[in-house]
Amino acid sequence: MYKVGIVGGTGYTGVELLRLLARHPRVELSAITSRGNAGQPVADMFPSLRGRVDLCFTEPDPVRLAECDLVFFATPHGTAMQMAPALLEAGTRVIDLGPDFRLKDADVWAKWYKHTHSCPELLEEAVYGLPELNRERIAKARLVANPGCYPTCTLLAVMPLLEQGLIDRSRIVVDAKSGVSGAGRQAQVRTLLCEAGENFSPYGVAGHRHHPEISEQLAAIASNQVGLVFVPHLLPMVRGMEATVYMTATDADIDLQALYERRYANEPFVDVMPAGSLPETKSVRGTNLCRLALYRDAASGTIIVISVIDNLTKGASGQAVQNMNLMLGLPETMGLGDIALVP
Amino acid sequence: MYKVGIVGGTGYTGVELLRLLARHPRVELSAITSRGNAGQPVADMFPSLRGRVDLCFTEPDPVRLAECDLVFFATPHGTAMQMAPALLEAGTRVIDLGPDFRLKDADVWAKWYKHTHSCPELLEEAVYGLPELNRERIAKARLVANPGCYPTCTLLAVMPLLEQGLIDRSRIVVDAKSGVSGAGRQAQVRTLLCEAGENFSPYGVAGHRHHPEISEQLAAIASNQVGLVFVPHLLPMVRGMEATVYMTATDADIDLQALYERRYANEPFVDVMPAGSLPETKSVRGTNLCRLALYRDAASGTIIVISVIDNLTKGASGQAVQNMNLMLGLPETMGLGDIALVP
Amino acid sequence: MYKVGIVGGTGYTGVELLRLLARHPRVELSAITSRGNAGQPVADMFPSLRGRVDLCFTEPDPVRLAECDLVFFATPHGTAMQMAPALLEAGTRVIDLGPDFRLKDADVWAKWYKHTHSCPELLEEAVYGLPELNRERIAKARLVANPGCYPTCTLLAVMPLLEQGLIDRSRIVVDAKSGVSGAGRQAQVRTLLCEAGENFSPYGVAGHRHHPEISEQLAAIASNQVGLVFVPHLLPMVRGMEATVYMTATDADIDLQALYERRYANEPFVDVMPAGSLPETKSVRGTNLCRLALYRDAASGTIIVISVIDNLTKGASGQAVQNMNLMLGLPETMGLGDIALVP
Amino acid sequence: MYKVGIVGGTGYTGVELLRLLARHPRVELSAITSRGNAGQPVADMFPSLRGRVDLCFTEPDPVRLAECDLVFFATPHGTAMQMAPALLEAGTRVIDLGPDFRLKDADVWAKWYKHTHSCPELLEEAVYGLPELNRERIAKARLVANPGCYPTCTLLAVMPLLEQGLIDRSRIVVDAKSGVSGAGRQAQVRTLLCEAGENFSPYGVAGHRHHPEISEQLAAIASNQVGLVFVPHLLPMVRGMEATVYMTATDADIDLQALYERRYANEPFVDVMPAGSLPETKSVRGTNLCRLALYRDAASGTIIVISVIDNLTKGASGQAVQNMNLMLGLPETMGLGDIALVP
Repeated sequence: MYKVGIVGGTGYTGVELLRLLARHPRVELSAITSRGNAGQPVADMFPSLRGRVDLCFTEPDPVRLAECDLVFFATPHGTAMQMAPALLEAGTRVIDLGPDFRLKDADVWAKWYKHTHSCPELLEEAVYGLPELNRERIAKARLVANPGCYPTCTLLAVMPLLEQGLIDRSRIVVDAKSGVSGAGRQAQVRTLLCEAGENFSPYGVAGHRHHPEISEQLAAIASNQVGLVFVPHLLPMVRGMEATVYMTATDADIDLQALYERRYANEPFVDVMPAGSLPETKSVRGTNLCRLALYRDAASGTIIVISVIDNLTKGASGQAVQNMNLMLGLPETMGLGDIALVP
Repeated sequence: MYKVGIVGGTGYTGVELLRLLARHPRVELSAITSRGNAGQPVADMFPSLRGRVDLCFTEPDPVRLAECDLVFFATPHGTAMQMAPALLEAGTRVIDLGPDFRLKDADVWAKWYKHTHSCPELLEEAVYGLPELNRERIAKARLVANPGCYPTCTLLAVMPLLEQGLIDRSRIVVDAKSGVSGAGRQAQVRTLLCEAGENFSPYGVAGHRHHPEISEQLAAIASNQVGLVFVPHLLPMVRGMEATVYMTATDADIDLQALYERRYANEPFVDVMPAGSLPETKSVRGTNLCRLALYRDAASGTIIVISVIDNLTKGASGQAVQNMNLMLGLPETMGLGDIALVP
Repeated sequence: MYKVGIVGGTGYTGVELLRLLARHPRVELSAITSRGNAGQPVADMFPSLRGRVDLCFTEPDPVRLAECDLVFFATPHGTAMQMAPALLEAGTRVIDLGPDFRLKDADVWAKWYKHTHSCPELLEEAVYGLPELNRERIAKARLVANPGCYPTCTLLAVMPLLEQGLIDRSRIVVDAKSGVSGAGRQAQVRTLLCEAGENFSPYGVAGHRHHPEISEQLAAIASNQVGLVFVPHLLPMVRGMEATVYMTATDADIDLQALYERRYANEPFVDVMPAGSLPETKSVRGTNLCRLALYRDAASGTIIVISVIDNLTKGASGQAVQNMNLMLGLPETMGLGDIALVP
Repeated sequence: MYKVGIVGGTGYTGVELLRLLARHPRVELSAITSRGNAGQPVADMFPSLRGRVDLCFTEPDPVRLAECDLVFFATPHGTAMQMAPALLEAGTRVIDLGPDFRLKDADVWAKWYKHTHSCPELLEEAVYGLPELNRERIAKARLVANPGCYPTCTLLAVMPLLEQGLIDRSRIVVDAKSGVSGAGRQAQVRTLLCEAGENFSPYGVAGHRHHPEISEQLAAIASNQVGLVFVPHLLPMVRGMEATVYMTATDADIDLQALYERRYANEPFVDVMPAGSLPETKSVRGTNLCRLALYRDAASGTIIVISVIDNLTKGASGQAVQNMNLMLGLPETMGLGDIALVP
């Protein structure tokens, strides 16, 4: 059994990680920290874990965490970059579900997070944890930056075309929609049921922190700048994310369906649906899957790719477990076999 | 008091029309028909109308309807075109909330509705009932085609720019989202709470009946063909519609905010919000308002317009009452003063 | 026009009061206060009020408030009792939507609100603002304690039987359910959409502040102690409240339907539905109505009364406007004619 | 591997059964029937099962079903009683998730289901499949009547007290609330999102088919008639069921907490929560658990028991798998280890 720890387990990515790790056959949860809730049994905060997780939250203790084979950070920005260097030094591998290591450029990071990065030297080393893009590098990494939910949903939709240079790079329009759980478990007015329920609106139109993350990855894939228009919206539901991506084909004759099916033929967590399908977020709820469907508007030369994930699973904690499996040399799908809860 | 009738009052646009007309100070509801429910008190089907609407549903009786000053059709396609000619002949004005008179081209109509149009001669006469576009013609019309919900939400977002020729006409991308009430009150699996609740997905990507309607209006405004990419999605909520519209500016220097504020300065039901606003569907729920916000992505030259309406009110029955007011010479806003129900 | 003020207008009862007062034909809103938001336009916080309410929030200013004919307190406990005495002295009438004047016994108040009451002498004078019980006294009152939502929903269900002494007073079981808006607009984890959505649970089983309020009123009606078992539950929705009340008949032959119809024959806001009806919260949403249905389980001698209201309207702000109308000598139903928003 | 079949797999209990069986380590799904959908791949109807269930729906074929070790009926009333006798004769064990074998008295059955029972002789043999009540008998049964959701939720709440004779048998009040999935996957107006969403109401107050089922089991436990008052309500959510049960203690000194903890000490799927807990339906969503909390209102001598389950899992398909495990001699908890999906 591998020993794993979680720093900051009181949010929604934390409880989702606990749900997945508590049933994982090869890992043992040995520490879960929360400054504000030290001493409290995890199952008191999350009754769904009664009888399944016996740990209490503890103060983050570097020594105890360093005894883990791998530590997850499910923390807001700024925490992982403080604690990761010492853990890596001690030989503990690190997966950051937060944004501290997702960008390569410390200045861009500082601009978006309004904070100087405390260990810019690790930005280069950190591997961007999208297995469909970086599987081999993740397997050898000490430090993995687990992708954001919007970037995961978007990149899987765009990669096959962009890698082949089949679209106009000057503009990719991503109209994305997320369940409210993406906003986290903090007490705030805008995510109250009475505000977000029976309501729909865009947010972050003037700038969202996932914009530079997606842009940087698109540029890396294209080996070139890519014009990204990204508008996120808030859905009146808990889990689920959809992106409808609009691109301009540079070649009218591509066989979209074949291209995507080939690209993802061996991917256990990407499902290219049959032509004409309409992916639903509920069909991936609680799973690590991304489902894609492909359309073309012949009149205007537009390619439309629809992508759905569960923002907390493939968009966060499930992908983190997938990365952990790769880093520990375990079967990539281990512990990730759930079937979506329908209805 | 003007006498009005409703043909087909058992759906959601019907009950919304009843809600509005029951409180309207200058009209009297004199008949409401439903083949399947003739004899049943309206308030038995809709307990919300107990004590407010005393009528029973009746069989559609052309003579009785022809005694009305104005008749609304809140019916699926195919009904209004059968009954409208006789009513018009009798001097009764007609507003069709269904799609029978929304397109000018009978062949296009036949293609999308898989039906030959029974009175193509009326297509030319019918006025497309978007007051912000056709106010004077509506006031004089015998027959008004009340716009679809997606077309209303989209056209109000695009009109100011398109009228001035300030955008690239070859492609307008409309990513639209609708509450489930847009699908009507028919018993069907896909709109059950267990299917549509906590779920999100696109639909009609390969073709939606509002596509030709929007296209035709855009072309009329531009006096030219317009490339429309239109992807509707189903929201897990009852009422509300949002469109995020992506256009390419042909002039980098337009003052978007001023353009829209000027265009809609005298419109009682269009609210151009201050720069940086994020319109929410809930802020217009149950009202006849459209709220707009304007953004520009300088890097890619993209203009983003966000538009929200209540699909049943400004997107259907509220707009029908607005049209009725115009046709009857009443103040345009009469009976439409509700404030959105928040929260 | 009467001048009215609102102290504490940033919560859900506040915005509901604004929605109703903005359209009221005989009152003019002259001040709305909020310590934390002074200077902010009301319509910036609540975009639904754009174009309808032009005021800004101000610091609570006793002089300005005293110029009002009537002041509403939409504040948590403890505020109204500080400010009401001076206002009353100045001749301004007061309606407290909070709980400061709902109990007659200052010791019971202190026990439940963990606070000494600052003006116990007003507890006796304050009239409990349930018009169906105290219409005449409300009309003459200087100070009205607007009832809580659960008490309103419960008392209307029980009054006709209890007044006539037709039930066993030793136990009335009230199983009540409320939409989340009852918990207010404060940022807190338990009312986040992700917590309260798709979820259902009881709360306050060991003791809820509406228990002593209901008990005191039941005792007053019965002129005797009444055994109340009260279990509130939280519904995964915004607005609406239902109580299912279980009582034991002392007389097997009462004509329940006739009793209730007679008791409420002249009540504009109580609808005794036909025998066999199943009241829905949505049928009263946004209205000041209470709908009731009556059942009897002959085998066990149990009477079951079902009662639905909108917790923010008849359960709070609508009833406050009804009380205001009575106090100002206006028609009781003025400004309260909305029809429920369905669907 | 045991071979199992499902008759009628197109409803919500069907898809939940498929979700559980597809991951069960010791059973192989060998047939799933649906008259209306024969030939269609199961994963086309339920995209959540893509890649997990490869079967197509078939016409119900008695020969093929008789090759199974065990057959589940997930059908409305009337189907299982037609097909079960031949299957039992062929040595196939049967679990009926429908109501055909839940009552012992064929006349009562006929009264509630408006149908003569076609094999009353099997009613006696059928074992009521509540493992916490009938574990040994289930293990030996050929035919198990899987309990209804309300009966499961209620009986687990009442059993410990009723078995010990500690409550007044003349009246047990069960105020129960169910997510909409309990109403099934049929196209019907009342369970549309627009009808059931943001709404709450009782239903079946004058009589619900689970009433005789609960009554019969209560009477069997008590060896005596029990007065049951049962009012079900419809919740605006998909999954989850709660019952708040009101009983009168005959002994003021019972240690409720100890009684329930002892009774369920060895039950893997019943969680007696610590004193003062407030069980939430979400904490058991997608799991086979029942969580209970116990309260006492000393003043009126009332015992309040709160019980939550997932109506589709412990209330239907999860309990069916639990029964299957018992009947096949497998570990009772096999395949039922899911942790609730939170949030």
